[in-house]
Amino acid sequence: MTMKSDTKFGTICYGIDIGGTAIKAGIFDMSKKLCRRFEFPTNRKDNGGHILQDIADFVAAQNVRLGYKAQDIAGIGLGVPGSVMADGTVNKCVNLGWGVINSGKILSEMTGIPVYTGNDANMAALGEYCEAEEKAGSMIFITLGTGVGGGIIIDGKPITGANGAAAEIGHIPIVHDETEECTCGKKGCLEQAASADGVVRTAVRILKEYGNTSSLKSYDVLSAKIIFDEAKKGDKAALQTVDTVADYLGKGLACAACIADPGLIVIGGGMSAAGEFLLERIRQSYRMNVFHPCKDTPITAAKLGNDAGMYGAAQLVINSCS
Amino acid sequence: MTMKSDTKFGTICYGIDIGGTAIKAGIFDMSKKLCRRFEFPTNRKDNGGHILQDIADFVAAQNVRLGYKAQDIAGIGLGVPGSVMADGTVNKCVNLGWGVINSGKILSEMTGIPVYTGNDANMAALGEYCEAEEKAGSMIFITLGTGVGGGIIIDGKPITGANGAAAEIGHIPIVHDETEECTCGKKGCLEQAASADGVVRTAVRILKEYGNTSSLKSYDVLSAKIIFDEAKKGDKAALQTVDTVADYLGKGLACAACIADPGLIVIGGGMSAAGEFLLERIRQSYRMNVFHPCKDTPITAAKLGNDAGMYGAAQLVINSCS
Repeated sequence: MTMKSDTKFGTICYGIDIGGTAIKAGIFDMSKKLCRRFEFPTNRKDNGGHILQDIADFVAAQNVRLGYKAQDIAGIGLGVPGSVMADGTVNKCVNLGWGVINSGKILSEMTGIPVYTGNDANMAALGEYCEAEEKAGSMIFITLGTGVGGGIIIDGKPITGANGAAAEIGHIPIVHDETEECTCGKKGCLEQAASADGVVRTAVRILKEYGNTSSLKSYDVLSAKIIFDEAKKGDKAALQTVDTVADYLGKGLACAACIADPGLIVIGGGMSAAGEFLLERIRQSYRMNVFHPCKDTPITAAKLGNDAGMYGAAQLVINSCS
Repeated sequence: MTMKSDTKFGTICYGIDIGGTAIKAGIFDMSKKLCRRFEFPTNRKDNGGHILQDIADFVAAQNVRLGYKAQDIAGIGLGVPGSVMADGTVNKCVNLGWGVINSGKILSEMTGIPVYTGNDANMAALGEYCEAEEKAGSMIFITLGTGVGGGIIIDGKPITGANGAAAEIGHIPIVHDETEECTCGKKGCLEQAASADGVVRTAVRILKEYGNTSSLKSYDVLSAKIIFDEAKKGDKAALQTVDTVADYLGKGLACAACIADPGLIVIGGGMSAAGEFLLERIRQSYRMNVFHPCKDTPITAAKLGNDAGMYGAAQLVINSCS
């Protein structure tokens, strides 16, 4: 059986996720099957002024190589690492060097193909939402990596927010006794305690109570991975760090659930590699802190890894065509 | 010029807000002009088993009195004080004595009129949203009364949540050193510090630091109103109470904004009568605690008072007909 081609909307779409280091690009059919996957470096020279042309050149080259005509392409989904307004305007991408631009409009003019733009974390959320077994209608997605980011899905669609800042779970005020400033300028953000750097910060503070009894003391440079590995081996300071971080994360997710009451919570990002060891601790704290009707909301691990944004960007095109 | 009647949907609708003490009912035209307003006691006997029949009888009597036929009525909007699922199922109303019932379906069978059901705070949110000068697309509404409730509007529509528990701002974990239990069973909910009772609790704790120097000591029984009034007159303990409460409220709204990033925040409920004196303090705390893109989100006072739920219920009918 062959897929019936959709002459109105095209038969394939591009899902493109612009990261600070690399651009991930997938060619998908309209049932979101990944046909081809590419990755090329993000050129951040000249305030990221070459990025969109690089993408346009890539798309043109692939179209020629694979024999696609304009009418074959349903659209390009574009995930960008910054706030994206409902009209597609990107409200600065510090990581790329971009100011306020409508990247979708520019890329569409360059390629002649409709472009659908979203925040990268929202795109990853949408990608993971579509992979989840439970089709809950709504979902909160949290990424634990260099920062703590997130995306929120309501009625199956990512929510942008009035300022392109919905689901900024990492900046919920949660650490009441924090004395240092977050990168955002506030004090006590979830990210300060629970990002990869935050885990190390938390460990360094806890280690002060442990003298030289912790195995963590034998490392010149700590990382979140080392701390999780030592905690799994039973080191008490590392365990206390993981418990503390999980407590903050559960509390942050409880705050989020008291507002959005999602049908599903998905945890992704590099730190989610710690698996059930971390997840079960987060669930415990979540249940302690959340309003009772939301106590049984499933908290699961993300499935798409670093490709979630690319899948979600493709989904944005597919959603727009249905 | 006369309003053109909409023969498809009817020309009027009922907006009904079921409270624990009284039922407020309005007859509205389809431009949401309030034509008649009624109020009658909530009969909570027999686990609230008479309430829906009372409403059906009221609607039938008004229809006869005013000469409305079934086809004139576009629908009944019903706000209930409990969690309401997307399909209209009410997931318990402790205040009314209700278990899990589909009140809309029952009332519709009694009256022969379509019924649209929502949580009372969501209905109030929708009512206030439609009154707001800024049509922001999204809004968070918080009511400061016996409890701290809320509603959330996204894309112009109230959000139910997967468990009918969206916008339960009162149960965000916010008071880190709370030792007593909230009515919900958790410790440290915003409601414990910032509801009308919460304000009194906060004052009682603060008064311990003030000996007999505070004017609040002259009252046998404290109330939120007394505390706000004495704070406005300059009593230091009362002022510290208001500052503490506003700090928690600003922080709670900052949590909410980090998740939903609404275009507008509206504060209602009995305590909002304290006016700019309270609002300006909440704004200060909000700006301190929120992620920077959301710093300028307007925080304004509600306009419809106790009628907000009734207006919102009518709006739910009007939305369903457009």
